[in-house]
Amino acid sequence: MSGSDVRTPKDLADYCRTLAERARKASYRLAQARGDTKDRWLHLCARYLSERQDEILAANRLDLDKAQQLGLSPALRDRLLLTPARIQALVASLEAVRHLPDPVGRVLASEVRPNGLRICKVAVPLGVIFFIYESRPNVTVDAAALSLKSGNAIILRGGSEALASNRVLHTLMQQALHDTGLPTDAVQLVDRTEREAVGYLLRLPEYIDLVIPRGGEDLIRRVVAEARMPVLKHYKGNCHVYVHADADLDMALEILVNAKCQRPGVCNAAESLLVHQAIAPFFLPRAAAALRAQSVEIRGCARTRQLVPDAREATEEDYAAEYLDLIISVKIVDSLDEAIAHINTYGSRHTDAIVTQSLQAAQEFTSRVDSAAVMVNASTRFHDGFEFGLGAEIGISTDKFHARGPCGLAELTTYKYIVLGHGHVRL
Amino acid sequence: MSGSDVRTPKDLADYCRTLAERARKASYRLAQARGDTKDRWLHLCARYLSERQDEILAANRLDLDKAQQLGLSPALRDRLLLTPARIQALVASLEAVRHLPDPVGRVLASEVRPNGLRICKVAVPLGVIFFIYESRPNVTVDAAALSLKSGNAIILRGGSEALASNRVLHTLMQQALHDTGLPTDAVQLVDRTEREAVGYLLRLPEYIDLVIPRGGEDLIRRVVAEARMPVLKHYKGNCHVYVHADADLDMALEILVNAKCQRPGVCNAAESLLVHQAIAPFFLPRAAAALRAQSVEIRGCARTRQLVPDAREATEEDYAAEYLDLIISVKIVDSLDEAIAHINTYGSRHTDAIVTQSLQAAQEFTSRVDSAAVMVNASTRFHDGFEFGLGAEIGISTDKFHARGPCGLAELTTYKYIVLGHGHVRL
Repeated sequence: MSGSDVRTPKDLADYCRTLAERARKASYRLAQARGDTKDRWLHLCARYLSERQDEILAANRLDLDKAQQLGLSPALRDRLLLTPARIQALVASLEAVRHLPDPVGRVLASEVRPNGLRICKVAVPLGVIFFIYESRPNVTVDAAALSLKSGNAIILRGGSEALASNRVLHTLMQQALHDTGLPTDAVQLVDRTEREAVGYLLRLPEYIDLVIPRGGEDLIRRVVAEARMPVLKHYKGNCHVYVHADADLDMALEILVNAKCQRPGVCNAAESLLVHQAIAPFFLPRAAAALRAQSVEIRGCARTRQLVPDAREATEEDYAAEYLDLIISVKIVDSLDEAIAHINTYGSRHTDAIVTQSLQAAQEFTSRVDSAAVMVNASTRFHDGFEFGLGAEIGISTDKFHARGPCGLAELTTYKYIVLGHGHVRL
Repeated sequence: MSGSDVRTPKDLADYCRTLAERARKASYRLAQARGDTKDRWLHLCARYLSERQDEILAANRLDLDKAQQLGLSPALRDRLLLTPARIQALVASLEAVRHLPDPVGRVLASEVRPNGLRICKVAVPLGVIFFIYESRPNVTVDAAALSLKSGNAIILRGGSEALASNRVLHTLMQQALHDTGLPTDAVQLVDRTEREAVGYLLRLPEYIDLVIPRGGEDLIRRVVAEARMPVLKHYKGNCHVYVHADADLDMALEILVNAKCQRPGVCNAAESLLVHQAIAPFFLPRAAAALRAQSVEIRGCARTRQLVPDAREATEEDYAAEYLDLIISVKIVDSLDEAIAHINTYGSRHTDAIVTQSLQAAQEFTSRVDSAAVMVNASTRFHDGFEFGLGAEIGISTDKFHARGPCGLAELTTYKYIVLGHGHVRL
């Protein structure tokens, strides 16, 4: 950051524009790169991560010391922390991405038209991705790996609290680019901490094809409001488990507790339970006991509170909330219809589950709940790129445009049409 | 429009919001509609178009009279004109869409994971489409047909000069919705002519999933700047024909003349010719003569003008221009590399063609030209939904996100993940 204090905003705008221009240029070369070259890069990154572990940990210590001085919470400092084990996990994830098939060049469709013209729809990279994220320095490497493997240049903007760590990781990935003959501008780090840098980059649709923000809802809303290019995102995960009248109650209990408690701080954890009134008297007291055993606070509707007297009253805000914590809202519904309407009203279009033995109820629920993933007799926690077999994910989208649900390598590509004729003209 | 002059902007905002809310509600029901019901709607629309032809033509005459009073150009009035033949063409296109397969419910991918969880990726409608277009009233029916067949509710905003025609067409389509038991709000017309109505609707991402503007570049830029939801679009088509050093010159000539002259006013017509310097002395004089025979004006680089003395000098603006007219810019390039760089700099990422006999040149060109469609030895005019076998198109996209190239029924859908377990929980 030497000298950054004396730079003017004009400098910063130029800095951002240059970064983006260089990424665009690199993206053209990267789009042509062979799969084995990209895989060699992934392998070299993994090797350099292992070899330069001490250097990485030393830089990370600088970030952690500063975080302590700034009074960051222990939770935030833990997110910032790199350890030898976490670095080895990164090495493993690089090798996992290396072993995934190259998404570029896949023929998605190909047809010879009656006039003999061959139409091929071929997967190609999107171009340049701007990735905005918070603390975790391991995300720096994961995001770059998925981006480069899918043939996209990436501009990384991590949290300022992780800058020292990110700089070392970035240098190491650029070294690997250099050593494999790939353009070093294919992975760039925004090495300026001013907030305005993000705004400048979001106004450069001529160089940046896609923004992926990962972090709190406020960050994402700010990015969506300012971006002049598409944004791949989800605001939040207010996921529901609906227990239908004919559910296997043991199964429902297991799914509920897993969805709520297995990892409460993530977007696909359940935040709300809906129970059909016909089985509420049998199910809710058991559910409340099981949740209480896991220290989960219950906030329920009036009917819920008759069956679970110590539950707090749920407000409208509760039904819309993503707690990311050991809290759950509960509502008794009169019908499948009411459950579906509630989810489509209060939910976040992320992940919602039904527990039922009825084929018709399952079909109604899965077709009418307007969410990226709908689960039948399975925990919401399965909505995940690895669990869905994509190999890895750069995020989950609740949008309907381009990609919905977990976004892996294929979702970081677009396509072009290649048309082969032999002198074809239109009549 | 009765009374619209005395309404306040607040009224208009409410009107737009109500329209959009009703479209959203209708979209939920429409998403569940059976294919044969949607097809019956298409068939009824075709029947009503034929049966009520006189009424349609009478309304169209009102629009035409007004257009003449307002002094609209003959070209614009021709775009506005409906004739019995044009109505029969609409009937035919409705029947063509009816015979296309239903894009909703297709299983795009399905896999049983090692843990027994079945993951299905299923095509579903986007939801609500806001379609903004100019004069041609036949577009009203074509757009509604594609939208409804793909399970999407549509809000139509045509040009005010076509309002009387559009009202009759809209009434007739709503009648068909009513008669097939589909929600009548699935096809709505913005029946207010104030420009601000578009702005209000563009700020309702909670109800509208996609905007499709079709018209001049200014209209599209305005929509992109204001829209809070994704936009499917192309700004313009500055399409190139590049004649490589080894091209079959007869073939090159045929393709060039077809691409430029077969229908010069459309987005996939060629606007620029690039010629490799090695064959320029043989090809350009012939090309100039053939183009001149079709009344095409030539604007060339200095070297072009040595070979084609009566060519005007081409400016930077010429190389970036979409003439939509009998004008072409010409440049002699030293290499395939220069041709590709020129296209990626000045082009519009729409459609670009190479004429060559070299496999390597074809591969370089198709992989490095960053356009929605790249053609080898074929006219740019083939970039079209019908020619590509999509059956019909609602527009062409030069964006990389969601859909690129011609957008047919499949491109008006998204997908959701349906996950089937039998009590699955995450470990």
